[in-house]
Amino acid sequence: MRILLLQLNPVIGDLAGNAEKVRQEVVSAGRDAADLIVTPELALPGYPPRDLLLFRSYIDKSLEVAGDLAADLEGYPPVLLGAARPSPSPVGRPLSNVALLLHAGKVARSFGKTLLPTYDVFDEDRYFEPARGPQILELGGTKIGISICEDIWNDADFWNQKRYHSDPIQELVSAGARCLVNISASPFTAGKQLLREKMLSGIARKYRIPLLYVNQVGGNDDLVFDGRSCAFSAKGELIARAAPFLEDRLALDLMGEHPGTIHPDDFSPEQEIWNALVLGTRDYIRKTGFRQALVGLSGGIDSSLVAAIAVEALGRENVLGVLMPSPFSSEGSVTDALALGRALGIRTTELPIEGIMGAFEATLAGEFSGLPRDITEENLQARIRGTLLMALSNKFGSLLLSTGNKSEVAVGYCTLYGDTNGALAVIADVPKTMVYRIARWLNARGPAPVIPDAVLTKAPSAELRPNQTDQDSLPPYDLLDEILHYHIEQHESAAEIIARGYDHGVVHRVTRLVKGAEFKRKQLPPGIKVTDRAFGTGWRMPIAAREWDLPR
Amino acid sequence: MRILLLQLNPVIGDLAGNAEKVRQEVVSAGRDAADLIVTPELALPGYPPRDLLLFRSYIDKSLEVAGDLAADLEGYPPVLLGAARPSPSPVGRPLSNVALLLHAGKVARSFGKTLLPTYDVFDEDRYFEPARGPQILELGGTKIGISICEDIWNDADFWNQKRYHSDPIQELVSAGARCLVNISASPFTAGKQLLREKMLSGIARKYRIPLLYVNQVGGNDDLVFDGRSCAFSAKGELIARAAPFLEDRLALDLMGEHPGTIHPDDFSPEQEIWNALVLGTRDYIRKTGFRQALVGLSGGIDSSLVAAIAVEALGRENVLGVLMPSPFSSEGSVTDALALGRALGIRTTELPIEGIMGAFEATLAGEFSGLPRDITEENLQARIRGTLLMALSNKFGSLLLSTGNKSEVAVGYCTLYGDTNGALAVIADVPKTMVYRIARWLNARGPAPVIPDAVLTKAPSAELRPNQTDQDSLPPYDLLDEILHYHIEQHESAAEIIARGYDHGVVHRVTRLVKGAEFKRKQLPPGIKVTDRAFGTGWRMPIAAREWDLPR
Repeated sequence: MRILLLQLNPVIGDLAGNAEKVRQEVVSAGRDAADLIVTPELALPGYPPRDLLLFRSYIDKSLEVAGDLAADLEGYPPVLLGAARPSPSPVGRPLSNVALLLHAGKVARSFGKTLLPTYDVFDEDRYFEPARGPQILELGGTKIGISICEDIWNDADFWNQKRYHSDPIQELVSAGARCLVNISASPFTAGKQLLREKMLSGIARKYRIPLLYVNQVGGNDDLVFDGRSCAFSAKGELIARAAPFLEDRLALDLMGEHPGTIHPDDFSPEQEIWNALVLGTRDYIRKTGFRQALVGLSGGIDSSLVAAIAVEALGRENVLGVLMPSPFSSEGSVTDALALGRALGIRTTELPIEGIMGAFEATLAGEFSGLPRDITEENLQARIRGTLLMALSNKFGSLLLSTGNKSEVAVGYCTLYGDTNGALAVIADVPKTMVYRIARWLNARGPAPVIPDAVLTKAPSAELRPNQTDQDSLPPYDLLDEILHYHIEQHESAAEIIARGYDHGVVHRVTRLVKGAEFKRKQLPPGIKVTDRAFGTGWRMPIAAREWDLPR
Repeated sequence: MRILLLQLNPVIGDLAGNAEKVRQEVVSAGRDAADLIVTPELALPGYPPRDLLLFRSYIDKSLEVAGDLAADLEGYPPVLLGAARPSPSPVGRPLSNVALLLHAGKVARSFGKTLLPTYDVFDEDRYFEPARGPQILELGGTKIGISICEDIWNDADFWNQKRYHSDPIQELVSAGARCLVNISASPFTAGKQLLREKMLSGIARKYRIPLLYVNQVGGNDDLVFDGRSCAFSAKGELIARAAPFLEDRLALDLMGEHPGTIHPDDFSPEQEIWNALVLGTRDYIRKTGFRQALVGLSGGIDSSLVAAIAVEALGRENVLGVLMPSPFSSEGSVTDALALGRALGIRTTELPIEGIMGAFEATLAGEFSGLPRDITEENLQARIRGTLLMALSNKFGSLLLSTGNKSEVAVGYCTLYGDTNGALAVIADVPKTMVYRIARWLNARGPAPVIPDAVLTKAPSAELRPNQTDQDSLPPYDLLDEILHYHIEQHESAAEIIARGYDHGVVHRVTRLVKGAEFKRKQLPPGIKVTDRAFGTGWRMPIAAREWDLPR
């Protein structure tokens, strides 16, 4: 039994393009390449297609494209193609999430998904009706158990809490499956591959059955898919792994003696997140039809790291760095940004904002007469910069990357319509402490350091008033990031975090800031998810809400 | 059997405040007020609590507050209180959406929701495990069938397509219920009450059973709840209706001779939407802890209507109108805005933007040298205005209301970080043609017209370049709104709309603009939902996606 797994990077909505990619892969593999070729979940529409699925004609068109592809591939091995189709049930959700079997020139059958994730970033109950009963493909006398992504994430021996009442994998084995194939579109989060492989290996070993897992790769808005398709023997041994963060294919002979390619996967956390951010940035820009990006360079660590990511994703010739000093900017903010630009080899330009600040203050002088300067004037600087960056973006057709990190976004230490402006918030899910770690890893990677030492060592500052530092307004980032981890990722209340030994006042200030910043987060661009719980599609909070977790 | 329905306006997250409101209502009704008192769905946390439900301590606190409330209300009639609690099942979603029975000083029982809406703005499968079996409360020997919102929206005789496999109402009747009580938080859309009452009446008649329906009222972010709790006799006759868009209570004697109060409900579509927008605006501002609002006045219809809504919601003394003319502004843009301000009795201020435009152009002169003026300079004007408005908002602590209508938001005829700035997008779900209709209705309502005639009759224009009108870039609004209706609300593809007889080129231009504006809509403030399909929480579209519905 020879199986070929295609680890593909589809473009959402591009039915024709995604089908053509499958066609080329199958044709280039050849007529005798395998007994079965397998794509990731929803490979035809791309995952996640979201509300495109509500357009009936989109579903009709998908099936038409799948039919054409089947006809084109007559004479090639059968293909399992991830797609959406109308549900066979007259009652319930309108669609099924399936693997279509393209065989002998036709769409011969389909195999449905049973467990539909509806948590975090997932909304599958919104669209899909669950499949009923084991989904088994018989091929050359061998029963292959087909499952789709979540179907394999409900093993009673692996998880403390079962989210679903059935276990499709157990049902497949009971129904006589001799091999398990899981087609997935499983988004990246840091460290998740270890968990995936441990879980998959455990299932293979428990049922004494070979298991093949093919995952999507590529960035789609806030989600990055890391690929790393893999296979396990009936003993639970890893026998193949595809490349991380790249399109790849993986050929397996399940009954043969030879294991497949095992691509190494020994990233440090910093390197793993870096790779995800680079892929997410590259794909967002490419898939929206752009080539170039610009970044406002403040001389700080966040914008320095984002510029470095942009260069790796797009090439130095496609990145512009924009310095916008004010009278409150330190000398270092300019010299450090210029040094970074030189180290990255990108073009930089300098647009001082003092003249525009003066024009705004003159225009507002009447309304503001007699009132002290406050955060209004600080926000004004950030908004002037955001407007200048958007003017460059509009004039030159390059996308603006915003540079806020997760710690800032969490507590609202950012100006809406100012430094939050951008098409993509590259590091919005990276805590400030991890921003530093990635920057240091990057410098160590070589060939030469790119982020100037001064950027790594000076006190973080928004430089919106004289001698300001972030720590005037916020707890030290080490402490802040710990509190945020418990609150955001572990859903702990202030009381629970205080019970861990953190200061009462600090914790309540942080949780209050988090709540008060919902209105800002509502209006942020997509940010690339790298943690278990990112702001964005997986964080759905009311805005006009009172605090319930008050200090006592 | 005397039942008292409490049509409440809870604040999301305000467990103590919402409980106190119930306590006051029950106490003021008195110890002998009814045999049962009923609140809306999730009245304790407020609907929708969204991801607050993921905080376990929030759920624990809810139950603690419910227990205290039960103790406070000992000696008063039993109360059915909408709340969330841990699911009794060790498998599945963590919570249940329930009506808690507060009786004899304790939380005596709970009745669960069976059908969990997960479409449009709803995400209930994200949190809740469905109840199993009929939920029956026996009170003084009478079996009362308890259902929660969606449970009653799956009647096989009323709907062509059943979304769910079970019908909890049929099960309640089969189990011997002699009366049906449905607790709801059913969001407003224009015309929905007609459908609700028709459906509820049909169910009462079909099963020959009295039916009581209590709905939440008030605005919560993008959703407005319109109240209009109601009751039907076993013949399907409407026997009571509470006030629309207001807190109210409704007392019913089911076995008695006297029908309850039937509040009139003969709104025109314009008046109904107006009421929803006023309530949504008032509650958003109040529930976020603000009192005052400001609106940029362009002399156009959209900002005029939004200012009028703000005055009705907050009082004229709490609304500031800001005129920001440029050299491209017509004389009418200033005189019409001033006339509107006088008619509304609000303070206005004028901040010309020419000086700031000059400062930006001087700063950008080097980068833009030799390049023609284009949309960049138009966006710049909008962003200068957006920044001025935010400066006023920041300095004076009043919320900025943005003024874009649904037609503009659909096709992206707006400047991100410019005229889209704001805490709330008041009319973002109102098509331009309906904006005109509401404005004319408002003028006719009296006592005197508020929107100047010139605003109603002049050609719509963004006035960002000389002699510009909206129709330079867009089809006439009558035509545009029809195409958008089919595309956005009916999910029709360009091909399907063209098949209705619309021009091929116009339709494809519109659908392409809609797709191209996803990145803008991602970053908009909440908009008040008034149609079946609003942009916002019920519109979940990928951004980095290719068009699939291409011209042939």
